Amino acid sequence: MISVVFIGFGNVNFHLCKALLGSDFVTVKQIFNRNVLDLNSEFQKIPFTDTISEIKDADIYIMAIPDDAIAAFSESLSFKNKLVVHTSGAVGMNSLSNNNRKGIFYPLQSFSKQREADYSNIPICIEAEKNQDLELLRTLGKIISKNVVEISSDERAKLHLAAVFVNNFVNYLYHIGNDILDKDSISFDLLKPLIMETAGKISSLTPLEAQTGPAKRNDIKTIEKHLHLLGDSPYAEFYELFTNALKKTNV
Amino acid sequence: MISVVFIGFGNVNFHLCKALLGSDFVTVKQIFNRNVLDLNSEFQKIPFTDTISEIKDADIYIMAIPDDAIAAFSESLSFKNKLVVHTSGAVGMNSLSNNNRKGIFYPLQSFSKQREADYSNIPICIEAEKNQDLELLRTLGKIISKNVVEISSDERAKLHLAAVFVNNFVNYLYHIGNDILDKDSISFDLLKPLIMETAGKISSLTPLEAQTGPAKRNDIKTIEKHLHLLGDSPYAEFYELFTNALKKTNV
Repeated sequence: MISVVFIGFGNVNFHLCKALLGSDFVTVKQIFNRNVLDLNSEFQKIPFTDTISEIKDADIYIMAIPDDAIAAFSESLSFKNKLVVHTSGAVGMNSLSNNNRKGIFYPLQSFSKQREADYSNIPICIEAEKNQDLELLRTLGKIISKNVVEISSDERAKLHLAAVFVNNFVNYLYHIGNDILDKDSISFDLLKPLIMETAGKISSLTPLEAQTGPAKRNDIKTIEKHLHLLGDSPYAEFYELFTNALKKTNV
Repeated sequence: MISVVFIGFGNVNFHLCKALLGSDFVTVKQIFNRNVLDLNSEFQKIPFTDTISEIKDADIYIMAIPDDAIAAFSESLSFKNKLVVHTSGAVGMNSLSNNNRKGIFYPLQSFSKQREADYSNIPICIEAEKNQDLELLRTLGKIISKNVVEISSDERAKLHLAAVFVNNFVNYLYHIGNDILDKDSISFDLLKPLIMETAGKISSLTPLEAQTGPAKRNDIKTIEKHLHLLGDSPYAEFYELFTNALKKTNV
């Protein structure tokens, strides 16, 4: 049985806790959060504290708090030599305090409270200083996901950077599409099947193989028509940057 | 029974023909293509010609050829006063020749020969000069899709522009993500669940609601770390453009 304490209870630990609650191999010993939380009924049986000195003993402390707070908060923990992991893509393992054993448990997904998360397909990137801790994190990861991988802090930094492109920036392109249509009261729903297909295509093709469009074909007439439609919109700068890159890359 | 002749047999008409072949309400009278094609067995029963003067009589001629060729090719057809439609997102209906009745049958999707297309969810955007032709296109559209909408040429131009952002440019961001990982031999597969979730999220949230990431949080440390990792890569320009836009837009 692995005992776990959640430190911080934002989107990441909310979904992680939900996924682990169903397991016979895990005890959720406690939730710590700086502010008192109004927890859903499913979490109400779990002991809660907002006081650092009252954090209970556990095998793993999973800290999902803002990146900037990780170093100082891990330093402020009152216990020693326990396994303390954080869940951030962007922060190196060495930012954690030397007072405890260090590790990473990074679920590579974008979580929203409003949306169910299917953990079974989410890659869990683990890292630890000690082999035994790595194996404990692997065991924990495998309880919820088929996809547990050991990733170094340097690799994780690259993964997180790439994730920003394929998640945050992609979502902003969805916003641009939505905004272009909104101005003429055209429904954004019309684009949703295309959006799903664009994402689905790369399950079987590389992005290079899947690339289509006027820039790839160097269809100058259409490109000029689009730039004319965009006029002095700030989106024109995006259009030009992508179009020039697509022309050059010969994808 | 609606009779159809396909003019051009690239990805769009290939999938459209496939979808219509199964219907009891449609006869595929002929495929015209400039070059002789090596057709799959499923298409071999359909009469084929590469000679314009031999194109058969039909209720609807569906022309899916390069955008630049639409005007001249529609002018070169030897028959008169028939319903000739094209399938392009970017070309106005008025580019079609006055010799025939004009219309549009634009499936809003990105097709690849290697991938099955599920037409039932694909929006079909129709337009015609005459009401009777519009109704015929609506009937044809409904045979293959639940989602047939009348869209003017001006609206279609906006839709196509928005589609370039959410499809072609999004796919290029997938390519950037892939490329960043490739350089360190990290598997792009790790990002695929995130990519699917990012696309899936906007089925229930607006892109503004779904937006997350360091730029949205104005997490300067992480942004600087990412720019440092990108170094003099051409992708740094993309990173800065998106990051600045996300900061400004207050999404």
